[in-house]
Amino acid sequence: MEEKDRKFIKTGSFNSGYFEGGNGNTVLLIHGGGAGADSFGNWKGCFDLFASRMHTFAMDMVGFGQSDAPDPSVYSYTQEARNDQAIAFIEAIGGKPVDIVGNSMGGATALGVAMKRPDLVKSIVLMGSGGLNHGVSEALAPVIHYDYTLEGMRKIVAVLANPKLQMSEELLNYRYELAIEPARKAAYRATMQWVRDNGGLNYEESRIEAVKTRTLVFAGKDDLVVPMKENVRFLELLENSTGYFLPHCRHWAMMEYPELFTKIVTDFLLTGA
Amino acid sequence: MEEKDRKFIKTGSFNSGYFEGGNGNTVLLIHGGGAGADSFGNWKGCFDLFASRMHTFAMDMVGFGQSDAPDPSVYSYTQEARNDQAIAFIEAIGGKPVDIVGNSMGGATALGVAMKRPDLVKSIVLMGSGGLNHGVSEALAPVIHYDYTLEGMRKIVAVLANPKLQMSEELLNYRYELAIEPARKAAYRATMQWVRDNGGLNYEESRIEAVKTRTLVFAGKDDLVVPMKENVRFLELLENSTGYFLPHCRHWAMMEYPELFTKIVTDFLLTGA
Repeated sequence: MEEKDRKFIKTGSFNSGYFEGGNGNTVLLIHGGGAGADSFGNWKGCFDLFASRMHTFAMDMVGFGQSDAPDPSVYSYTQEARNDQAIAFIEAIGGKPVDIVGNSMGGATALGVAMKRPDLVKSIVLMGSGGLNHGVSEALAPVIHYDYTLEGMRKIVAVLANPKLQMSEELLNYRYELAIEPARKAAYRATMQWVRDNGGLNYEESRIEAVKTRTLVFAGKDDLVVPMKENVRFLELLENSTGYFLPHCRHWAMMEYPELFTKIVTDFLLTGA
Repeated sequence: MEEKDRKFIKTGSFNSGYFEGGNGNTVLLIHGGGAGADSFGNWKGCFDLFASRMHTFAMDMVGFGQSDAPDPSVYSYTQEARNDQAIAFIEAIGGKPVDIVGNSMGGATALGVAMKRPDLVKSIVLMGSGGLNHGVSEALAPVIHYDYTLEGMRKIVAVLANPKLQMSEELLNYRYELAIEPARKAAYRATMQWVRDNGGLNYEESRIEAVKTRTLVFAGKDDLVVPMKENVRFLELLENSTGYFLPHCRHWAMMEYPELFTKIVTDFLLTGA
């Protein structure tokens, strides 16, 4: 995965950036909603591992990465908007059903696609997923009150990943530059304002319960954003869900344990176990 | 795995029956405590799958299968007794540290060995495991009030496994014959009496929390014997534990989904994922 290989595709009224690689069954990777998050920064460590087994796409969500970031005065940064973007993306790359792997806000999007267009989805993987969130704990102060500095970005990483993760200065800078770019910053503020207004990133439980898509709930046992309790609740609500709980892992399994994460997920998607 | 290949070994004051097969890292399979349970009936469906990747042992616990069943007037059928038997078995086959996979009461034994002799254990797999049980639900009436008939055995299977499991008449009869053999029946009654007197098959939580052995908690989401809540508690208490929760599965994953169960478990033991 190299930054220069990013491509673009029309998704509804705007363009989305994405990466593509590998052969076989199609999987779409959807990043989370932290400041500076995007397809490149979040999936860099495991994109090539996915691509060695599957036809792999990683997309930038609206307002993040190199996707368009429409002005919040003319565009609503809601969860439904991201669900619609992912649906438009799947249709744009051929419209055949795909597997979706979503981290955090990206998990909420995977779930949203499964709710709205189950015909476009084979299996979903919810990793540290939003969807049952009703507010955040004070442990997440560095994330909630991000001050748009490089040091602040360092503190975000320290809270979201386990203490052993050493993010490279290069990647840290990459995230930081994205976070402070004016259009993306405005989009991020609008996105977070919507989450606050909505009382967290959540769906009605009855909507989650109605999803019959085959699902893997992948959870870091030490995740401070999505605690054990919410992941267990996903397992209870989603009839066809398998659970995998990893110790010494927080919110970013795909960066904290890229090989293990990719193995468990691709085995689940390709071999059923 | 064929019944005629059972071997015997001295474990303390009595003999234990067991099976052995395959090459590589050593794994010991320990069956549960249902009426008529033993190494052959419980692991038949996955023993050869384990043996294709690992040096595999499956032992009969005291009072079960072809292990001795000392008269309850001269022998106490306690959990500590089974822990000691497993320790004696590991020492008898060479005394090197092994992986242990235990179902139900066998999970409690795996945990007991990890508590008492961590030097003899590499990793443990707790599958539908006892250890946090404080009594049983009324859904388990056919198990609790087993009437020592073949029909009663059929009802036990219907409660412990998901409705899709079709146990062969041959295996059902095998379990039934074991359950009604006088010495084993007496041992079983003594075993269950101890469990009732003990208020379930449980350890002090602080003893479980002290276990630092690498652990896989493997759970059927529909298990009526060991509910989700207890499996989640294992994940919280055991610092180095990974969790795997399987849908449409009850108490007998090794019989309900032998291929998937063996794959997940041997991958965990051999590749770390």
